[in-house]
Formats: sequence, structure tokens, C-alpha cells
Amino acid sequence: MATYTLYTLPWAPVAFQGQVRDLPVRWALEEIDAPYAVRTLSDEERRSPEYRAKQPFGKVPVLEVDGLAVFESGAIVQHLGENSWLLPAESAQRARARMWMFAAMNSIDPDIIALGDIDHFASDTDWGRTRRPDVERSLRTRLNDVASALGARDFLAGPFSAADIVMIGVLRGLRHTALVNEISALRAYRDRCEARPAFQRALAAHMNTFTRRVA
Amino acid sequence: MATYTLYTLPWAPVAFQGQVRDLPVRWALEEIDAPYAVRTLSDEERRSPEYRAKQPFGKVPVLEVDGLAVFESGAIVQHLGENSWLLPAESAQRARARMWMFAAMNSIDPDIIALGDIDHFASDTDWGRTRRPDVERSLRTRLNDVASALGARDFLAGPFSAADIVMIGVLRGLRHTALVNEISALRAYRDRCEARPAFQRALAAHMNTFTRRVA
Repeated sequence: MATYTLYTLPWAPVAFQGQVRDLPVRWALEEIDAPYAVRTLSDEERRSPEYRAKQPFGKVPVLEVDGLAVFESGAIVQHLGENSWLLPAESAQRARARMWMFAAMNSIDPDIIALGDIDHFASDTDWGRTRRPDVERSLRTRLNDVASALGARDFLAGPFSAADIVMIGVLRGLRHTALVNEISALRAYRDRCEARPAFQRALAAHMNTFTRRVA
Repeated sequence: MATYTLYTLPWAPVAFQGQVRDLPVRWALEEIDAPYAVRTLSDEERRSPEYRAKQPFGKVPVLEVDGLAVFESGAIVQHLGENSWLLPAESAQRARARMWMFAAMNSIDPDIIALGDIDHFASDTDWGRTRRPDVERSLRTRLNDVASALGARDFLAGPFSAADIVMIGVLRGLRHTALVNEISALRAYRDRCEARPAFQRALAAHMNTFTRRVA
């Protein structure tokens, strides 16, 4: 079995605890029963040329897989899926899982990032108040589209897959809003995914990184 | 060889002509010498349940590959790469290509989308004027990071790959700014990619879709 080392940060603003992208990576590792070492970075290490060689933006997470540094949580989860059941073997389902990974990252997340920028950093600004309704409207439309696409399926690609890990990782950026809860099919989908024991183990490990270091 | 049908729109606002995401898909198809049929959608067709079954957000492009509808340009380019040289065979380069596809879509594009929303739709608003400097600053940092990561390489994964097609497709959203041009290594990278005959053929076909229909 491969050896895995996860690079992450020992701190995050409270609003982001529970959604930093080491969470989907931990979740994927838990699903495939892959033990991993954790390396928490100091700010100095994070800014070092050595870390930049692993992660060009100085962000987390990075997952080293047998010494290969893989960055971008979507790419990490996909990488883990290439050699496990996280990407379905059946070709149409496998293609569908890939489509939904990119959809989460490029058709859903940009609006979630925009909403988070407003709600966490600019809620008391004129521009934030002016801009927010349009962002929320766009996002609500897209979320309803995801619910429609799910239809009667339990998961995006058919069976549970890497796509659900990536999508839930993205949707967690909306926990401070009612946007997911107000769409019953999407709420049920999220709850179904987050009830998985592997998610619960990943979330506990993720949160533990912060609680040990804060104070 | 597989049969390919590209679904796209016969119109786009002038500012978006040259960057709608059928362009990277056409480019990938041209690189691998794969002939494809084009199906331009009326607004009514685009909104139909039949098209929504192919593309959950009612957007373009979709590429049908032997009848399988693949959506999200990143996923389409990756799909084409799985069965061609567009994803390098060497495992570290292949992983690197995947990382950069996700980086383009989730670490670079959200700021480009935000800047485009301001410049094309809100340049005369107070919120747009207030917000723009922060978006530009964030984007400039990321673009410099991409240039640093390229270093002495000609292309993101080593050899030219699907990652360059996706990254250039994203960077084209900045043609109305000086942001790419002002970073010489990034400008050279873009020019190197866009000089490829396959890109030039794809761009001509992409633009021709619009020019035939406008008037």
C-alpha cells in the first residue's frame, strides 16, 4: 500500500473550521482505509520555497503519495480514486464522477466562494450588501439544478464516489446559510453523505487539528 | 475512432466571443485529430428537459462521445486525455496535469469570473468599483504563482497537455486586461500555447459559430 502524508494548517478562522479542504482529502483516505501521517505547517514553512515546490499557491492541502506531492483537493481525491473504488469502474459512471468533480469546483464553488467572501469579510460593507442578492440568486439556481440532476439517485455518479466527496466539500461552505437546507432533496443528499462513518472520522480529525492548537 | 458531437450556442456577448468553453474542447479535439460534428442549440433547445439531461445547468458545452454526454469543459478535456496523449503516460506528469486542471478551475478561475462579472456587467456600479482592486490583487498574486511554478518549463505538466488547454481556456477571460501581459513568463507561456496550429484552428471554428449567426 502507498504511504500518505497530508500537509495542513494548525489554525483556521472559526468560520472556516469544518470546511478547509483537507477535510475531503481525509474523507477520501478514510473511505479507502488508507492510514496517513499529518504534517501541520507553521506559517514560515507554508511560505518556504520547499513548500511552494509542493503547492504553487502556498495553500493547503497537499497529499504526498509515495513522495509525489499532489495539490488541489479535487485532484487529490481524483488521484486516490484512480487506484480505488472511489472512481467507479463502469465507464459511464466513472465519466459522470469526473464531470461532477469539475462541476462542483467550477460551476458551484465560484458562487460559494463569492458568497463566503461577502458573508465572512464584507457583510458590513455597502458593496457586500449590494452584491449579495445576485450571488445568492445565482447559487440557488445552481443548487436546484444539482438537486434536479440527482433526481432519484442517492449519489451523483450512481454509487457513492469521489464526486460526492468533492461536492460535499464544496457545499460545506454554505453551512452558515439556509441554502442547502431549503432544498429538501439536496439536504437529504448532504445528510446521506455526511452520515457515512468515514466522513465522521474525517471531520473529527479535521476539527481536532484546530482545537489542539487554538488557545 | 469514437464519434464526437459538440453542443454549443450560436451566440455570445461580444466580450465572451473567444472564451466560451467550447473553445478548449475544440482545441483538445484538434490536437488529437478527432473530427467532430457541431450542434448549435436554440434557446428553447438549451432549456429543454432533453438538454438538461445532458447538461444539468443548461450551459454549453457538452461533448457527446459515442452517445455519452460529457459536460464541464474540464471534465471533457480530461475525458479526451484519458484515451490520448493529452494526458501524459508518465505517472508523475499525468498526476501533475490533473493537478493543474483543477488549479485552473478552482484556484484561478473564481477570481477571473469575479473580475469578469465586474468588468462586463458592473463597471459603472459603486460595488464594482469598490470590489475590483481586491479581486485584481488576489488574481495578480495567483498569476505570479503560476508563472513561478512554470519556472523553466514550457508547459505545466512538462510536455504540452490537457492542463495547458484548460489553463489557457481560463486565462482567456483576462484578454480585456493587462494582467497576463504584465507577467512576461506567463505571457510567453500563453503565446507558446496559442501559437499551436490546433489552437488556431479551434479559435477560427469557435469564432465562426458566432459570425455566421450575428446580423
